[in-house]
Amino acid sequence: MKLVIAGGGFGGLRLARKLNNKKGIEVLLVDRFNYHQFQPLFYQVATAGLDASNISFPLRKVFQKSKNVRLRLADIKSVDAENKKLITDTGEIPYDKLVIATGAGTNFFGNKELETYAFSMKSTVEALQIRHRLMENFERATIEQDPLEVERLMNIVVVGGGPTGVELSGAIAEMRNYVLPKDYPELDFSKMKIYLLEGSGKVLGTMSEKSSDQALKYLHRLGVTVVTNYLVASYNGKTLTNKVGSSIETATVLWAAGIKGHVPEGITKVEPVRGNRLPVNELNLLKPYDDIYAIGDVAAMVTTEYPNGHPQVAPVAIQMADNLANNLLAQLSGAEQKTFRYRDKGAMATVGRNLAVVDVPKPKLHFAGFLAWLVWMALHLMLILGVKNRLFVFLNWLYNYVTYDQSLRLIFREFHREDETVPV
Amino acid sequence: MKLVIAGGGFGGLRLARKLNNKKGIEVLLVDRFNYHQFQPLFYQVATAGLDASNISFPLRKVFQKSKNVRLRLADIKSVDAENKKLITDTGEIPYDKLVIATGAGTNFFGNKELETYAFSMKSTVEALQIRHRLMENFERATIEQDPLEVERLMNIVVVGGGPTGVELSGAIAEMRNYVLPKDYPELDFSKMKIYLLEGSGKVLGTMSEKSSDQALKYLHRLGVTVVTNYLVASYNGKTLTNKVGSSIETATVLWAAGIKGHVPEGITKVEPVRGNRLPVNELNLLKPYDDIYAIGDVAAMVTTEYPNGHPQVAPVAIQMADNLANNLLAQLSGAEQKTFRYRDKGAMATVGRNLAVVDVPKPKLHFAGFLAWLVWMALHLMLILGVKNRLFVFLNWLYNYVTYDQSLRLIFREFHREDETVPV
Repeated sequence: MKLVIAGGGFGGLRLARKLNNKKGIEVLLVDRFNYHQFQPLFYQVATAGLDASNISFPLRKVFQKSKNVRLRLADIKSVDAENKKLITDTGEIPYDKLVIATGAGTNFFGNKELETYAFSMKSTVEALQIRHRLMENFERATIEQDPLEVERLMNIVVVGGGPTGVELSGAIAEMRNYVLPKDYPELDFSKMKIYLLEGSGKVLGTMSEKSSDQALKYLHRLGVTVVTNYLVASYNGKTLTNKVGSSIETATVLWAAGIKGHVPEGITKVEPVRGNRLPVNELNLLKPYDDIYAIGDVAAMVTTEYPNGHPQVAPVAIQMADNLANNLLAQLSGAEQKTFRYRDKGAMATVGRNLAVVDVPKPKLHFAGFLAWLVWMALHLMLILGVKNRLFVFLNWLYNYVTYDQSLRLIFREFHREDETVPV
Repeated sequence: MKLVIAGGGFGGLRLARKLNNKKGIEVLLVDRFNYHQFQPLFYQVATAGLDASNISFPLRKVFQKSKNVRLRLADIKSVDAENKKLITDTGEIPYDKLVIATGAGTNFFGNKELETYAFSMKSTVEALQIRHRLMENFERATIEQDPLEVERLMNIVVVGGGPTGVELSGAIAEMRNYVLPKDYPELDFSKMKIYLLEGSGKVLGTMSEKSSDQALKYLHRLGVTVVTNYLVASYNGKTLTNKVGSSIETATVLWAAGIKGHVPEGITKVEPVRGNRLPVNELNLLKPYDDIYAIGDVAAMVTTEYPNGHPQVAPVAIQMADNLANNLLAQLSGAEQKTFRYRDKGAMATVGRNLAVVDVPKPKLHFAGFLAWLVWMALHLMLILGVKNRLFVFLNWLYNYVTYDQSLRLIFREFHREDETVPV
């Protein structure tokens, strides 16, 4: 059986690893990057705490010794379900069975202006772009004469109070508190404002009430201006306004307010559901197709417990991959397939040094502060692929912790040449 | 006195550090990057052995506690010597004295075709571009049907048999010998050719006869095809031809065959000499100007011992910076200035693991092999700025040595989208 996996994120990579060196199944893993991205730490790449390479793992290295898993670097364009082919920018790939594990991208909810001017952070490359922009803005501020423009260059707005927005705004606040004033003695950082804007009534809305409250306290402690019930109306690259007409002057809007499934074209027999996700049954099969599956962020498996599909987080993708791998092998051996059941191990978010919140569902408990922060770090270290990456992340964290210094404040592109293509 | 230093390379940065916190002198260091680049290890960034950040050091960090050194991120456009101003893309900078430490860039000797299609490696960003190109070529080769095109994608040509060309071709050969066949089982690496083309009769022409011979032996051992007396005539992105009409099929030409001084416009009273360098007197003064100095690769100080100027290497730039710093302070205190005298401590080049050559002038000796390789590593580690960078370079080297694996085979850009601007 020739299995094609579209996407090398948490779900796709896990599935390929589970099927590695299994008999009777040929696997082709397709991704537009040649490395697996560890999404949970994008915000630390953006804020100069980690190197992009620390959270990236070459896919070919994972399968160097594999007998049945091959790689293809390609942009996925569409599915030709009729002829059982995946269409990519580097050619057509025939399949017997296809697994769509393409994840989710940023959702600007149709606002073209935001799409043009706001930054999203759904890839390592985008995280690097944010880092470069942050650094360049301060450089520009040092030579800017107009006080309003200086304010704009220094102010940073993060939209979306989920884990990504909380972690990103917290990390930027720590840069402002510890590093930036030393780097830029010319600038008055008491004037720099960091906003976290959330559309609903609270941050970390998917976590417990206690964790949400605690995270808000931590954000205040770090000096983040949190505004809830804020609904962004427009942003022209300079001024952000909300639905009731109040405005914020900023050159930098980081958008973490929504995601939507990356659904390839050609899936004509199925209508995507909320969040542009593909509805799958409890075997992750994309009915009425009998040879196309979907797992992870792009899949929506509606159950009584999860009427809107499961949360779009790594553990769901990984567990779906595990279950699907077993089912594919069961098909080959004629054994019975098992329906998916999510084991929720909890949620966590970190706001800053020594500041994190953890919710555990069974037994129901939550804790916060230094211990939560240690747990957060230990878990993320364990999940990172590769001994070397783990060591380098740990050393970077240790360095940052001891020195209060995110040391990777490097702009790896030609400055002031945005008009030219610098394909790094 | 307001001193403006144009360029934060070995010379410019050293000068600013020497004048750090000295009374009576205000220093502004101008560079187009916000970090100091450790040029000698560009080739290891290009061949995925080191991270770009490992050899880059944020300039602002160096001068965080400085009372008199400020930074400016700017592209240097020209000098308005009449009005004592340095003109940059982010404004005009007035100076009392100016030091031109802009270094040297790639010299394609007027060949526009080569400039378009060949890669140069004179910045960290360019080193990353080479890395990305190498990785992408192999990805493309895995799906290419035409055998000639596969050959082109796999063959690599390095032009220029100086230290950079030798080190680069040696490192690529090691990738081919140890890493690439594991990553790309689809490809036949016995067909991959690595050429080192040199216009003169031998490689490492500036080093001793013994070191030159030994380096050649090492290159052969690694499987590099060295061709001397090879004069490149043309390259159209696919086929490289030489002056006598023989040709090599390759998609990748890495150009390390010449450099030329980065002379800003506006220096009208002085004619650049060979290699586009600015002729300076033994105080590094750019006569007839009495307020403009030049140091490092862009300067040519003609002496009886060095009739063509000093070698364009880091130690010359550093020693010129030291001498000029002392002279500038002497001017302030009314002490006597000293003429520059170069203390040549020798030269070295590394070809591969355990393979290096070292020349020491006094006492005249040269050695090669494992010991030379250890000396090379120790010296480079010492010269890298920053304890953290030193540690991370060391750990990367240790990792590469133990595993035979340059682990940073990551393409940090959107693949197959060269037409789009991806300003990373």
